[in-house]
Amino acid sequence: MLGTGRMGAGVVDLLLRTEGVELTGVYARRRERAGLDVGEAVGLGRPLGIAVSGELAALCRTTRPHVAIQATCSRVSDARDEIATLVTHGVNVISIAEEMAYPRVSSDDIAAALDALAVANSVTVLGTGINPGFVLDTLAIALSGVCQRVDRIRAQRVNDLAPYGPTVLAAQGVGLEPAAFRERVERGEVVGHIGFPQSIAMIGQALGWTIERVEEQREPIVSRVERRTALVTVQPGCVAGCLHTATAYAAGRPVIELVHPQQIRPELEGVATGDSIAMTGQPSFEFSARPEIPGGIATVALAVNMVAHVMNAAPGLRTMAELPVPAAVVGDVRRRLRVPLEAATHG
Amino acid sequence: MLGTGRMGAGVVDLLLRTEGVELTGVYARRRERAGLDVGEAVGLGRPLGIAVSGELAALCRTTRPHVAIQATCSRVSDARDEIATLVTHGVNVISIAEEMAYPRVSSDDIAAALDALAVANSVTVLGTGINPGFVLDTLAIALSGVCQRVDRIRAQRVNDLAPYGPTVLAAQGVGLEPAAFRERVERGEVVGHIGFPQSIAMIGQALGWTIERVEEQREPIVSRVERRTALVTVQPGCVAGCLHTATAYAAGRPVIELVHPQQIRPELEGVATGDSIAMTGQPSFEFSARPEIPGGIATVALAVNMVAHVMNAAPGLRTMAELPVPAAVVGDVRRRLRVPLEAATHG
Repeated sequence: MLGTGRMGAGVVDLLLRTEGVELTGVYARRRERAGLDVGEAVGLGRPLGIAVSGELAALCRTTRPHVAIQATCSRVSDARDEIATLVTHGVNVISIAEEMAYPRVSSDDIAAALDALAVANSVTVLGTGINPGFVLDTLAIALSGVCQRVDRIRAQRVNDLAPYGPTVLAAQGVGLEPAAFRERVERGEVVGHIGFPQSIAMIGQALGWTIERVEEQREPIVSRVERRTALVTVQPGCVAGCLHTATAYAAGRPVIELVHPQQIRPELEGVATGDSIAMTGQPSFEFSARPEIPGGIATVALAVNMVAHVMNAAPGLRTMAELPVPAAVVGDVRRRLRVPLEAATHG
Repeated sequence: MLGTGRMGAGVVDLLLRTEGVELTGVYARRRERAGLDVGEAVGLGRPLGIAVSGELAALCRTTRPHVAIQATCSRVSDARDEIATLVTHGVNVISIAEEMAYPRVSSDDIAAALDALAVANSVTVLGTGINPGFVLDTLAIALSGVCQRVDRIRAQRVNDLAPYGPTVLAAQGVGLEPAAFRERVERGEVVGHIGFPQSIAMIGQALGWTIERVEEQREPIVSRVERRTALVTVQPGCVAGCLHTATAYAAGRPVIELVHPQQIRPELEGVATGDSIAMTGQPSFEFSARPEIPGGIATVALAVNMVAHVMNAAPGLRTMAELPVPAAVVGDVRRRLRVPLEAATHG
């Protein structure tokens, strides 16, 4: 396990509840965490008898894991070195770094290098998570499978940022005046959602659309009422979050529209949270859920639920659209392995 | 292509619209169709210059297709011989026979024999369709992938039989008195939905539930109003369709509940058609669509959309849960192939 933040803690907690999995080690980037008991570092409330490591290569050599879950970063450029270290030590990798859902979007070179390294070491690297990784891409692709013709896919996710910490709120511009919001968008400080280009590339690749361009917009969600959470109070006229949209064009037509407004307490203005995927084509239909699938729980679940699929997969860099559908784990995860652990080659 | 009924006609029509696919031949069980032009046999309104064949083995030898789509039957026992013939001639098979979605439920022996034959001939056999094959199994499995714990899955499909022919209406008991409905259920003439045991086995296998028993119920949907279609009029007090349900138990608990009421014109009693999948666990959520995904269009789409996945797959008998998610085909389907057609080995 790589990472001891909120997602890392969630993964550790779920791994401990998953039959057939042994947590062999935890790596943290933050040097001050090295040596801490994992249970203490991730706030489990009980010691696990495993010390957090600050040396990834050494941890691989001593514990020899079959799979590592990476929850340390969002960007491919930032994820690369850790993944390369893991792969070189014969470890399969599941990353929840958003850009790793479809890493070629960020860098063809890094993606090609990681793919070659994974093939050379006979391991598989997968990026996953709720979004990108599932709701606005894998699920949309799966639903397109019932279509004889698809003219357009529109996928929307409306969530509530109230449970999130200050870093997330700042990235969505929560609490700013609208003018300050626009300045920070310009400066790249209000980023909105990380993942639209990845989701679009995944859908385009799976269906066969040649995406010509992607237009992204980040608009302030200006609140008409006071919205309050434990961390922040947004006055009327100030920004409750970021309405981030992306439209992808193929053959001059908009074919994919992704909509992801992220704000605190949308229900105060009568906005329901939820996920929806609408197909326009033959047939046209819309699947939706209210409220939305909770992102943190789901990202942790996907990372753990894909473990056996990744171990069963052909070596190389893979996307969610190339592997079998994810499935919750009931019982011993080892029953899903095509090749028993004892027989698996290991670096 | 095997079959010239309603589904066969739909598949032929879609194949003709799909770039990168060549329709090499059509086989029909009905001897009186042999020699007819395919366009005439399936009601396209124009000749295709291909004659319907009544000899499957000869058709394989002369046309040497890479993939065959089977739309001739519902049962594994009835599908087996045609599939064996195809496989022996080096042809990959996509069957929409309901029981082929998970053939081991019907016969372990036939499934094992087909699997061995497919492996020996380096081809893949897949069962698919809207249901079983997608809504009440593959989609439910995929949605479970965001769960850290699943206590129960409830999936429901409410449809309208008004577009269907007399065979389908009879199989659901449409138009009968309630007493006659129950008698025909006893005699196996009113069968309800074919596919619950297959969907349950697929979900159980994918998640890891050991299913101990499945309870199925077929109840009459007694109409309170007059319901009329082009083919039948149901008087108040008579049967508008069959409420078919199945509950699967693992470790003594109900874990999967599938609900599929099939009736004519449910809207006349205020019942909306639709699909819904509800997860109870961590998290709990429900995805739904109104109206339901139209079954005929979707089954045809799935069969054609899985062509490249089947050609890319490891040889043997496969289920939808083992292959990558389906995706609509935009552009040339050959771009999806891992091994180009020219390089593919062929019997």
